[in-house]
Amino acid sequence: MDMKVKTNGSTKEFRTVWLDGTVIRMIDQSKLPFHFRIIEAKTCNEIAEAIQRMTIRGTLAIGAAGAFSIAQTCLKYEGDSLQELKDLAESCAKRIISTRPTGVDLARKVTRVLDIVRGATDLQSAVNLSVIEAQRVADEDVEVCKKIGENGSDLLGEECRVLTHCNTGLGAVDYGTALGVIRRVNDQGKKITVYVTETRPWSQGARLTTWEMLNEGIPHYLITDASAGMLMHRGEIDVCIVGADRIARNGDTANKVGTYQLAVLAKENRIPFYVATPLSTFDLSVETGDEIPLEERDQEEVLFSPLGLTLNGEVSTVRIAPEESKARNFVFDITPHNYITAFITERGVVREPYRKNIMKSLEN
Amino acid sequence: MDMKVKTNGSTKEFRTVWLDGTVIRMIDQSKLPFHFRIIEAKTCNEIAEAIQRMTIRGTLAIGAAGAFSIAQTCLKYEGDSLQELKDLAESCAKRIISTRPTGVDLARKVTRVLDIVRGATDLQSAVNLSVIEAQRVADEDVEVCKKIGENGSDLLGEECRVLTHCNTGLGAVDYGTALGVIRRVNDQGKKITVYVTETRPWSQGARLTTWEMLNEGIPHYLITDASAGMLMHRGEIDVCIVGADRIARNGDTANKVGTYQLAVLAKENRIPFYVATPLSTFDLSVETGDEIPLEERDQEEVLFSPLGLTLNGEVSTVRIAPEESKARNFVFDITPHNYITAFITERGVVREPYRKNIMKSLEN
Repeated sequence: MDMKVKTNGSTKEFRTVWLDGTVIRMIDQSKLPFHFRIIEAKTCNEIAEAIQRMTIRGTLAIGAAGAFSIAQTCLKYEGDSLQELKDLAESCAKRIISTRPTGVDLARKVTRVLDIVRGATDLQSAVNLSVIEAQRVADEDVEVCKKIGENGSDLLGEECRVLTHCNTGLGAVDYGTALGVIRRVNDQGKKITVYVTETRPWSQGARLTTWEMLNEGIPHYLITDASAGMLMHRGEIDVCIVGADRIARNGDTANKVGTYQLAVLAKENRIPFYVATPLSTFDLSVETGDEIPLEERDQEEVLFSPLGLTLNGEVSTVRIAPEESKARNFVFDITPHNYITAFITERGVVREPYRKNIMKSLEN
Repeated sequence: MDMKVKTNGSTKEFRTVWLDGTVIRMIDQSKLPFHFRIIEAKTCNEIAEAIQRMTIRGTLAIGAAGAFSIAQTCLKYEGDSLQELKDLAESCAKRIISTRPTGVDLARKVTRVLDIVRGATDLQSAVNLSVIEAQRVADEDVEVCKKIGENGSDLLGEECRVLTHCNTGLGAVDYGTALGVIRRVNDQGKKITVYVTETRPWSQGARLTTWEMLNEGIPHYLITDASAGMLMHRGEIDVCIVGADRIARNGDTANKVGTYQLAVLAKENRIPFYVATPLSTFDLSVETGDEIPLEERDQEEVLFSPLGLTLNGEVSTVRIAPEESKARNFVFDITPHNYITAFITERGVVREPYRKNIMKSLEN
């Protein structure tokens, strides 16, 4: 486990989410970097709410949380009806999948464990096999991220100024996608500087990616979302790397809002724009980005600043706009494939023509 | 005066900055929209500090404040040496002009009043004429903005979704530049919706432009800086209008950081991108944007959220990033002229070829 955190003077390592007996534990991402707190979920509903509140977030992390939730539902079942257990698992899966419509990984990981339950012929094997499958989902995620890191590292030079958006470390179970590449390049001893976009309104960049950079000792600068373009134009960025929530058959990519504009600006300034992502985020059932539903969240997130530390040392939020003003709060956007230089996956780097090469990667 | 504010149930109107006897009064822009507060400056140093702290901000507003500051220096002079007064005025001008290097209007307006002092042949005329000139600077600013509003209004259709960046109303003495166009279009009864970018780190959009929209009763949505591009791509923006701090001979434009990327995105999505600005922001002494110095401010502004209202009703700031993280805080950027559809000035709309047509407008 690679998520290093200093607690009480000693360094401990944590995954973003894990199953501990019948309890799902996870890092509370809503309080970082001010409070490092492990919280627990004992029911399917608690996991669904944690995802909705973004206590846990990021396509791979919520995918694993969802997988664990199905296993937990089985583990905690006290009745003696296999059919009842299957119904409970179906209903939990439905509840979890409904929380975040844009990504595809959550539905896939949940369904993967649900399919095990569906196929079970007795109660005990439903429990045992669902736990094994959920754990496999989480472990595979870490392995996949390490391969992505390895495969992406060759794309970055000996001295490299990288721009990344949102958060792709705590957004995975461990190691990270775009962060995985950055981490690997840093481990190789290359000289890397990371420009971290704030990523309003939830400020995943300002709160989470900076915290990861500090944990890893990677030199970094926080920048506002509005200054990314000018830095590219001034020649201060060598490469952009982001993650993804869902990728259509043609390569159109749904990711954190702001990704689209970074990709346009990168192309305009002839800077490579890479999407580091597992093959599990490719969704052949959608032809283009137009078919991917884009979540819009409560306007309050835009009208307020994210949780921060007040001058009195309290963790609080502040309203930054008049009470009568309205806001629009898009969470994701679609980056058309022609702005993407390549996808960095666990099976290698996928380049244009995407329709053909994405298919080839998935068939391997 | 058009800046309407409801205070104690009645509607009062204010300019952003004005001279009241020997005191310069101004709206404290650092506390809006939570507290509407008029503060006063009694010395040149107080004006310089107000500009540095951004209590007063915006190229035209600080230009007028600077002009008043020279007049105030004269008004408050109690000695009997014309040379000493001239020296004081020179030194005040130097102090004020040094506060914000990117814009050109501040230096011009200050120098305009300073030149009157320089040319004065007796103390009394130095005082009288500097006050008249400073007042003229402020009054002309308002007239110019009204003409800009008039000249720009024809460019917007009967139903129009406008994106604007930063703040251009309180950034002027009154009426506003980009806001002037929006205000005029709204007054004409056209159906207008304004998308207001947050404009981190100081959140001029979230705090000031929203407040102006509410005062004017103009329908508006606050959006994050990272979601402007996706809105353009989805076809939800018809036109972009921003202000300017300095424009080079070739049309390259310095303005609030984030302007460059909005302009690139507008061009990519075939959306007109207009710069509404007085001719006083054109600077023929610089050939291209490369020669315009770009101010970089304290990283703390990025590591913190702007002043907001806590849940306890206090106006406070919160730290949003780890204490050990570093930030870069660019305040302005340069938008190359080829991304700009036209300049809206008090003498009409200036289109390409800019080098020729800017010169023509200034010669008129």
